[in-house]
Amino acid sequence: MSTLYHHPMSAASRFIRLVIGEYAFEVDLIEERPWEKRKAFLTANPAGTLPVYVDDNMRALCGPFVIAEFMDETHGVLQRERRLLAEEPFQRAEIRRLTEWFLLKLEQDVTYPLCRERVYKLQMGSEHGGGAPDSRVLRAARANIRQHMKYLAWLAGNRGWLAGKRMSYADLSAGGAISALDYLGEINWDEVPAAKEWYQRLKSRPAFRALLADRVRGVVPVSHYADLDF
Amino acid sequence: MSTLYHHPMSAASRFIRLVIGEYAFEVDLIEERPWEKRKAFLTANPAGTLPVYVDDNMRALCGPFVIAEFMDETHGVLQRERRLLAEEPFQRAEIRRLTEWFLLKLEQDVTYPLCRERVYKLQMGSEHGGGAPDSRVLRAARANIRQHMKYLAWLAGNRGWLAGKRMSYADLSAGGAISALDYLGEINWDEVPAAKEWYQRLKSRPAFRALLADRVRGVVPVSHYADLDF
Repeated sequence: MSTLYHHPMSAASRFIRLVIGEYAFEVDLIEERPWEKRKAFLTANPAGTLPVYVDDNMRALCGPFVIAEFMDETHGVLQRERRLLAEEPFQRAEIRRLTEWFLLKLEQDVTYPLCRERVYKLQMGSEHGGGAPDSRVLRAARANIRQHMKYLAWLAGNRGWLAGKRMSYADLSAGGAISALDYLGEINWDEVPAAKEWYQRLKSRPAFRALLADRVRGVVPVSHYADLDF
Repeated sequence: MSTLYHHPMSAASRFIRLVIGEYAFEVDLIEERPWEKRKAFLTANPAGTLPVYVDDNMRALCGPFVIAEFMDETHGVLQRERRLLAEEPFQRAEIRRLTEWFLLKLEQDVTYPLCRERVYKLQMGSEHGGGAPDSRVLRAARANIRQHMKYLAWLAGNRGWLAGKRMSYADLSAGGAISALDYLGEINWDEVPAAKEWYQRLKSRPAFRALLADRVRGVVPVSHYADLDF
C-alpha cells in the first residue's frame, strides 16, 4: 500500500487527502512534523514540505502540486465527469491558479501563520521555536482572513463551484485550508453566506468525513466543526 | 500577438521566456513592477506574481507553473523529443519537483532576497520599501547559495541534465534563477565545475540569447555574464 506523510493541520495535506478520498483509493497515513527535519523525511523530500506520497515501489512524490498532477495523470484521466482537473487547457489553468492561490497565497497570508502560532508551536520543542503564540502574528493573519473569505464567497456565488460548474482541485484545496481554519474557529460564517453554502456542500461529501474526524491533541475544535448543517 | 508581463530580474519570468524561446513562438514583452500594484495588473492576476501571459483573446495565465503547464498542453505535447515536460508520470513529477525547487525554495532562500536588496530596492520608491540594501539579508542569502549550488552540481554531474537525460523545465527554471544571480556576480563557478559545465551548455542555446542581452538600469552585470565560455 502507498503512504501519505501528512500533518492533520496542514492545508496541503488535507487537500491531497480529499483528492485521494474522491478518487476512492486507500493510503496509509503517517503524521510528520516537518520542523523536526527527520533525515529520512528530508531524503524523500529535500524541500521539507508536506504532504509526501510514497507509492508501493517506494517512489516519493513531493508537495501538493506535484502529487495532484500525478493523480490527474494516473487516476483523473480515467474519470470523465468526476475528473478533478478539467479537460480544456484554459479551464485547467484556472483550476491550477486557484489551487496555488489557496495553497500559497492564503497559506502565506492566513493559514500558515494561524496554524503555526496556535498548533505547531504547541507541538514544537523550544529548540524548534515552540512556545506561546505571538499576538502580533495572530492579529495580522486575522486581518487578512476577511478579504480572502470575500473572494471565496464571490467565486462560490458567481460560479457554483470555485473554478466553474464542476467541483475541482480548486474546491478541494480551498476545503483543505478552510477546514483547518474552521477547526480553529477562525471563520465568521455569518459574514459570507455564499461561502457557507459552498462549504456545506463540500463538507457533505464522503471524502470529507476523515477530515471532520481529525482531532489535534491539546486543541479542541470549534463546536460546529463536524456539523454538516452549521 | 500575445503578451508576457515580466521583470528582467525575476527568475520565474526568465524561465517562461526560455520556454517560449525553446518552443519558438513570439510574444510582446512588457516590463511590470509588481510592487507598484497597478490595478490592471492585479485584475489580471490577483496574486500579483510574475510572469503573466495574456493571449490573443485577452485571457490571462498567472505565474510560472500555470503558464508552463499550459505551454505543455498546447505546444509541448506536439514536440516529441523537444518536449520540455516528459511523457511518463513519475518523470513529469521529478521535473515539476525541481521546477518548484528552483522557483519556490531557491527563490525564497537566495534569488528573491538578493534581487530585492540589490535591484528592486533601487527601482522602488521609498513608499514601497525602496532604499539601500540590508546587509543582514544579503549575508543570509549568500550563506544559502553554496548549498544550493552544490545540489545543482550534484544533479548536473549525475544526470546530465537536471531531471534526467533530456533538457526539461527543470533546467530552464534553474537557468532562469541562476542567470539572474550570475548577472549580479553572486555565483562562484570555480567551486562547482559540474554546474558550470551544465550552465555553459544551457547558455549556448538560442533561447538564452535574449536573457544574455538584458541590462538593468543602474546595475552593471558581472563581466562574464554574456560569455558562453566563462
